[in-house]
Amino acid sequence: MKRGLFISIEGPDGSGKSTQINLLRDFFNCQERAVILTREPGGTVISEKIRQIILDKEHTEMDPMTEALLYAAARAQHVAEIIKPALEKGITVICDRFVDSSIAYQGYGRQLAQPVQVINEYAVAGCMPDVTFLLKIDPSVGKKRIREEEQDRLEKEKLEFHQAVFQGYLAMEKAYPQRIIGIDASRSIEEVSQDILVHLSRLSKDLQQTER
Amino acid sequence: MKRGLFISIEGPDGSGKSTQINLLRDFFNCQERAVILTREPGGTVISEKIRQIILDKEHTEMDPMTEALLYAAARAQHVAEIIKPALEKGITVICDRFVDSSIAYQGYGRQLAQPVQVINEYAVAGCMPDVTFLLKIDPSVGKKRIREEEQDRLEKEKLEFHQAVFQGYLAMEKAYPQRIIGIDASRSIEEVSQDILVHLSRLSKDLQQTER
Repeated sequence: MKRGLFISIEGPDGSGKSTQINLLRDFFNCQERAVILTREPGGTVISEKIRQIILDKEHTEMDPMTEALLYAAARAQHVAEIIKPALEKGITVICDRFVDSSIAYQGYGRQLAQPVQVINEYAVAGCMPDVTFLLKIDPSVGKKRIREEEQDRLEKEKLEFHQAVFQGYLAMEKAYPQRIIGIDASRSIEEVSQDILVHLSRLSKDLQQTER
Repeated sequence: MKRGLFISIEGPDGSGKSTQINLLRDFFNCQERAVILTREPGGTVISEKIRQIILDKEHTEMDPMTEALLYAAARAQHVAEIIKPALEKGITVICDRFVDSSIAYQGYGRQLAQPVQVINEYAVAGCMPDVTFLLKIDPSVGKKRIREEEQDRLEKEKLEFHQAVFQGYLAMEKAYPQRIIGIDASRSIEEVSQDILVHLSRLSKDLQQTER
């Protein structure tokens, strides 16, 4: 059986990831392709419990390494329990944040680049996205799109932190041009969605040609 | 200020760790030395929440890598928030299980030796025990000392798992003879306690001589 397509969506908070993910799902549903939406940290019972610990606003004392290890733990469970089995059944998986978020937030934001890289290689166990759409928006613009009272522990970080994270994303876009597609997310929802679908149809053709 | 002494106690379930830790505390109290008892996984608010996820009997689907990463996350927080600050204040720290438990249980028991080693080097950040007392008892004997209904997810594992863990402990005792002191824990509480105190007083003398 043909392995399912694994898509991850990345970008700063407020870049419109959830909106675009829902539009992508509608697109695949119209094509009658089996698709699941999932998110990180989370996606399984155990990972959602880990998510609660990570994002709890009370946990201001959390050590950066603890945070990095918790994200990786949630990811390992998510991959083993949900993502790998779905892909093996030929199901398309759309994931709201994946390993690049850890590299950007904990690696660049918390300056733990090397440990985060190593830890996450164990966590993903070789299961990487076929394509990653990076919704690019200046963090100061993205932050304004989220209401203060709805922000979790990570979202509440200072703007400098979010700028470092964004620089991390841009560095990864450069480092992995085959996998990571940067999308200008300052435009309208429709324009961003169109852009993603154009890239996706090109990718599907490439994949079909590879299979021939 | 002189750094506090860092003691960890290891061994199979039912080897009598808690009993010996309490006796050790009494000993230090009599000497009027500041001492804290702590345990892994746990020891901080965040680590205790992680502990709940790890040991929950319902979480039978937990991936071995998730388990290893969660233990390391709890440890990173424990070291940063409790152990390091206490040692720096000159306080003696007695820890019920530490990094050797991960090497034994996840490394040997789950056959993840290499990742567990690497992950835990990040978690402990150079903060290793001065001495580790390994309470040696055959796991089949140890298991009988714990009531079935009181067993957590790890304790409920099959005897072969616990035998692999014990072999891991014995391998580490051989590999790190300077730090890990094996103690025959099949004997009476008093005999085991005597043995630990003899080793401890010898160690204190060694430490004093090193300082001269």
